[in-house]
Amino acid sequence: MNKKIITISREFGSGGRTVGKLTAEKLGIACYDQSLIEELSAKSGFTKEYIAEKSEYASHGGWLANAFADRSVDGYSNQDYIWFIQRKIILELAEKGPCVIVGRCADYILKEHDCLKVFIHASMEKRAQRIVEQYGERDDSPMKRLKDKDKRRAAYYQFYTDMNWGDVHNYHISLDSGELGIDQCVELITHLYNAE
Amino acid sequence: MNKKIITISREFGSGGRTVGKLTAEKLGIACYDQSLIEELSAKSGFTKEYIAEKSEYASHGGWLANAFADRSVDGYSNQDYIWFIQRKIILELAEKGPCVIVGRCADYILKEHDCLKVFIHASMEKRAQRIVEQYGERDDSPMKRLKDKDKRRAAYYQFYTDMNWGDVHNYHISLDSGELGIDQCVELITHLYNAE
Repeated sequence: MNKKIITISREFGSGGRTVGKLTAEKLGIACYDQSLIEELSAKSGFTKEYIAEKSEYASHGGWLANAFADRSVDGYSNQDYIWFIQRKIILELAEKGPCVIVGRCADYILKEHDCLKVFIHASMEKRAQRIVEQYGERDDSPMKRLKDKDKRRAAYYQFYTDMNWGDVHNYHISLDSGELGIDQCVELITHLYNAE
Repeated sequence: MNKKIITISREFGSGGRTVGKLTAEKLGIACYDQSLIEELSAKSGFTKEYIAEKSEYASHGGWLANAFADRSVDGYSNQDYIWFIQRKIILELAEKGPCVIVGRCADYILKEHDCLKVFIHASMEKRAQRIVEQYGERDDSPMKRLKDKDKRRAAYYQFYTDMNWGDVHNYHISLDSGELGIDQCVELITHLYNAE
């Protein structure tokens, strides 16, 4: 396969971030996820916590609230500034060489590049189980946390890309990590990447 | 992998039927597609042409028209009778042993069985190219033919399963045959099927 960049979009709690990390390790290529947040933080001046929240999730209230929220006099919000910087960083990373980029609309930002576009999803039950294991119990139920994250991630994606997040047509391969397991997802993606 | 039945749902013109046939050949297991139509025809008394149309596509006019169309005094339409027979045949086939079943809501009908659920899709452009190669030119444009088939297949699926056809969550693996190629789809599915 000629594609040497893998973009991984994933549902919250699906283990997509882990799939990206392990795939990159197996292929011996870079994985940009947490490091993207660090670079965004350094370049924008916002804290990493603020970036993590604002670089993938719409504000509470959906895209309409998001469209009007927090605008400065030139019409841009903090989230817009983070989007512009994020877009620039991702385009620069793509020029550096083979890599895995997790989330952050990289599939859309690199639409002119020859990427292998992956979507990792899982049932609500499997994701709820995973987020409790990974992040512990919270006041809100796991289902409520998932629904909130899903809704705001989809709204963010739609606002900046004008496409439907999680629509099967946006991806070359979509995998149910809850049914197939993390290792099998990594196996299939590396297999595809290494295919002639 | 313990799953020994593969269900393949596919967009019209994506080559999903060919993926199913080649996967079954490679695995040395049965593939039910055309043979299902023949059995349905024999058991229902309808012609194969009528079955091919009525066993996967809603009538023109969408699900609402379909809900009221062609009802006999007991409230069932010809399409409903074909659905009942089809469902029974698919459940019987699943008991026979490992196999590939293409289309016909098998993923839903076998939801209590341990199946590997696959969805094959491709862009409109790639599918248009394929249907002209496979079925030749018609009076209607390829795009119009695709949109009509997509719409009626989705309506049929929703009417009988109450689920959204092509929703990524319904499948364990979804593949873009236009970008990955038929052979690579077959390779990935057999790889997954043979995994421990």
